[in-house]
Amino acid sequence: MVANTHPTLKESPSEAEIESHKLMIRAGLIRRITAGAYAYLPLGTLVLNKVIAIVREEMNRAGAVEVFLPSLQPLDLLEESGRLQVFGDDLITFEDRHGKTTALGPTHEEIVTDIVRNEINSYRQLPITLYQIQTKFRDETRPRFGVLRSKEFIMKDAYSFDLDYEGLNKSYKSMYDAYCRIFDRCGLDYLVVEADSGAMGGDVSHEFMVPSPVGEDVLIRCLKCGYSANRERAEPAPLLQENHEALQALKEVPTPNKHTIHEVSDFLQVKPHHMVKTMIYIANGQPIAVLLRGDHEVNETKLTKALGQDAVALADHATIEKVTGARVGFTGPVGLNVEIIADQAVSVLRNFVTGANKSDMHLSNVNAERDFKISRVADVRYVTTGDRCKRCDHEITISQGIEIGHVFKLGTKYSDALKAKFLDANGKGKSMIMGCYGIGVNRIIASAIERSHDENGILWPLSLAPYKVIIIPVNVNDHALMQVAHRLYDDLTNCADMEVLLDDRDQRPGVKFKDADLIGIPVKVIIGKKFTETKEIEIKLRKGGETFLTTPDGVRAKIEHLFEALSKL
Amino acid sequence: MVANTHPTLKESPSEAEIESHKLMIRAGLIRRITAGAYAYLPLGTLVLNKVIAIVREEMNRAGAVEVFLPSLQPLDLLEESGRLQVFGDDLITFEDRHGKTTALGPTHEEIVTDIVRNEINSYRQLPITLYQIQTKFRDETRPRFGVLRSKEFIMKDAYSFDLDYEGLNKSYKSMYDAYCRIFDRCGLDYLVVEADSGAMGGDVSHEFMVPSPVGEDVLIRCLKCGYSANRERAEPAPLLQENHEALQALKEVPTPNKHTIHEVSDFLQVKPHHMVKTMIYIANGQPIAVLLRGDHEVNETKLTKALGQDAVALADHATIEKVTGARVGFTGPVGLNVEIIADQAVSVLRNFVTGANKSDMHLSNVNAERDFKISRVADVRYVTTGDRCKRCDHEITISQGIEIGHVFKLGTKYSDALKAKFLDANGKGKSMIMGCYGIGVNRIIASAIERSHDENGILWPLSLAPYKVIIIPVNVNDHALMQVAHRLYDDLTNCADMEVLLDDRDQRPGVKFKDADLIGIPVKVIIGKKFTETKEIEIKLRKGGETFLTTPDGVRAKIEHLFEALSKL
Repeated sequence: MVANTHPTLKESPSEAEIESHKLMIRAGLIRRITAGAYAYLPLGTLVLNKVIAIVREEMNRAGAVEVFLPSLQPLDLLEESGRLQVFGDDLITFEDRHGKTTALGPTHEEIVTDIVRNEINSYRQLPITLYQIQTKFRDETRPRFGVLRSKEFIMKDAYSFDLDYEGLNKSYKSMYDAYCRIFDRCGLDYLVVEADSGAMGGDVSHEFMVPSPVGEDVLIRCLKCGYSANRERAEPAPLLQENHEALQALKEVPTPNKHTIHEVSDFLQVKPHHMVKTMIYIANGQPIAVLLRGDHEVNETKLTKALGQDAVALADHATIEKVTGARVGFTGPVGLNVEIIADQAVSVLRNFVTGANKSDMHLSNVNAERDFKISRVADVRYVTTGDRCKRCDHEITISQGIEIGHVFKLGTKYSDALKAKFLDANGKGKSMIMGCYGIGVNRIIASAIERSHDENGILWPLSLAPYKVIIIPVNVNDHALMQVAHRLYDDLTNCADMEVLLDDRDQRPGVKFKDADLIGIPVKVIIGKKFTETKEIEIKLRKGGETFLTTPDGVRAKIEHLFEALSKL
Repeated sequence: MVANTHPTLKESPSEAEIESHKLMIRAGLIRRITAGAYAYLPLGTLVLNKVIAIVREEMNRAGAVEVFLPSLQPLDLLEESGRLQVFGDDLITFEDRHGKTTALGPTHEEIVTDIVRNEINSYRQLPITLYQIQTKFRDETRPRFGVLRSKEFIMKDAYSFDLDYEGLNKSYKSMYDAYCRIFDRCGLDYLVVEADSGAMGGDVSHEFMVPSPVGEDVLIRCLKCGYSANRERAEPAPLLQENHEALQALKEVPTPNKHTIHEVSDFLQVKPHHMVKTMIYIANGQPIAVLLRGDHEVNETKLTKALGQDAVALADHATIEKVTGARVGFTGPVGLNVEIIADQAVSVLRNFVTGANKSDMHLSNVNAERDFKISRVADVRYVTTGDRCKRCDHEITISQGIEIGHVFKLGTKYSDALKAKFLDANGKGKSMIMGCYGIGVNRIIASAIERSHDENGILWPLSLAPYKVIIIPVNVNDHALMQVAHRLYDDLTNCADMEVLLDDRDQRPGVKFKDADLIGIPVKVIIGKKFTETKEIEIKLRKGGETFLTTPDGVRAKIEHLFEALSKL
């Protein structure tokens, strides 16, 4: 392969906001075709195929069995599992020529469970883990960051079916370990964090994250003990009683037209962390009040779980006014005739400010127990700056990350809904115990670049580089240079795993070096002035820029030696 | 891998009409998920991956460069090429959450041409052939025959871009040869036939066909000289003047309410091949008459080309009645005031019967020249039984085939429409000269089975078999048998390219043999009675059933020897 079919760009494309996106376009890996849909050009396809090969190898090594499921999905299976509603507008559907509506698979839990319930009926056929590497479709509200958030993307999705929870734990561990091997081989620095299972259902789940300031996921970490979780899941250490000052007299204070925490805080000169916001939710058909410190945010996933519900929703304005007797913005716990859930951080406050359940009025010096009764204390908020680790009490670090993998213990959510049962050794029907496991194949590429690039371009790990070696004759019109370039190219191409690109374009050396650096090829073999003078070839590493001189006959051994060192990085 | 996760069925599924479809389901290769969409189960996925690997290897060997394009396609490119109309209802489209309509790619000429016009602008960057292996979507009116005609299928599509027609011829030849290597390696008996380019546009095209009575394509062949073409393209040898009888007097004959050739033929006791049907078409906005022998069918592709038009359409009833002055069913050439195109077979008739352009009347003893003027004689019909070869005059054979590949010389159809130009050595802008090349990956699998199976199941060529060897211990409760079975499994699994399945199910030997034959594994290693008696292992070929006895230590060498013979078949 010669270089003239690999288009590079000098300028950053205006559509790209983050480095990996800019570099994938500039280096000629991808091109945007329509919103959220990218074409992989030749160099991008080489990288993509490398990632896919690593994923497939490690899935097979873990004993997972490959299948290939269709993108076209009948709606009835999604109705059976109840996920038609969960996916909502994210689900792409179309009406066919006969008027039948079909969906494009955003994930394949239902399809795979449907197959397994039809094909597997005995405990002898379990456990099994099925996987596929396939294109998924989701109608993202705002596709962005190139292949990081697109409407069409390649996912490795796997599904395990076990006899019991002990089996699930084994299958889960096996996938978890395979994920570590995959991301290690792809040269990624990643973290594994506790996560919430969200729309997938189930209890335990872990996310594999590449820390990155452009990541759309929030990572909560303790740098001391290593605790890590995503934003949905992370729990703070409980706060202590803030002080022991005497309870002061409850006082009504007028706050005309001051609705928000910010407005009231400014107006009354009280810090938000000394205020309590009271939110009216509907749970199980009844209004309830949820109390949070003024500077905290409610975590509805935690709230839903704390209430033992499937879902909760904020009450509408009419309900709030009926429950509180006041306009929206003046709700408080005192005198409220509904169940009151207080976040743990509220339970340790004294003499705080909150709404008075009278329009344009707040109360100060409010105290639980004396002024109102808390029905239940729970952790229902997001961790925030200043929170401490629940395990070791060290201060928590909040950063961002790119989710590249996610593993879930599903339990019986889908096998119950779709009646995927097996007969155990006693002939008794039981629900299969499931897990599901996803890897964003395209995201591996983008996050590898996001984590490893410099001002000149991409710094590929050897395992993902589209080519490992580029041969650059500095002048294609110099017959002697070209002769040795072609000889080296033929020589190296015949070595296993060498993957060589020959840049025989009639371009200035500077252009060639820039392109090679932009594309990020780990080893440059430069045939230039040194060769003309002393018959020496320059071998230069992309990362670090170290340069070695050798004879043409020594090139191969030198590169093999360098590869050994590079593959250990 | 052990056999217990491969479901087989004893009965043929009712949904399946043809053998390959039945066997793919019974052998556990595929399952239907929704109309025209199939899941590949583990065994099917193994075969699929083998076909894909062969296709990829041969494309790379031919110098084609792999890309991966999105399924989501913006409509504007399809509008630019004019194919939005051509695809019509076959094109699957959906409206996204922002109300924008997007298509699912049925093929990728527009996308790839759009990329190339943006990235390539100099003659130095040409020629290039890009290919991808990707899922395509078409809303088939009637999906059937399993993966042979489905709504979602895997295609290898390639696109060549050349400086000139000489270059195109080379690129075309290179793809043509690669296709032959691919189908040879997949063990298919195939024919290459001249074909019409249809919706793709362009001039020259060839179809790769596997002859099969269940094929939906018609193959026209001369078994003597080897001429072959598809139904659209095939040309008959011109017919000779049928006789030299004297011209007889033109005569009006009443044919009350006899509209069709069949009705008139019965009523007048004249053979259809002695009658002429006259069809009114609209070409370039004008009505014209097309004359065909009563037993022949018009080939609109040929007609369109003969007229030098992009499209022709049958006239509506009102137009026909206006042009002929008679009810539909009584049209004839005599006295007609429009251009008259006669099929060559009509030009050699004497004293024939045709419509009189009067309701309920026909004419007999009609003769061209004397009674009406033919504007042009052309070949505008389909070849039919009894036609002879245009090259050697031998009788033509008509049979059916499955289309597995298609190569097209497109010329500038897309590069003109999408303005894909390059600057030549003199700095002059020229349209790129294109070709396109498709392989139905799933169809390779189905047609391999269609061509090679027996009453017990599939007969895989070694290159496509999901496993090459199956080890069958006849009794899993016999410790000695299982010990050698496991030892052989470990042994053979460690050989390159051996691909072994161990059937350690607790099943009767008969069930195991039946399943192995159904799945079509080429070599069975049977550890049974012979082993208990004389420590001998039976090695049995699926095809032909030949059996060999050997010691456990001789198994590997014997199989390697058999593979050598099998791979030559």
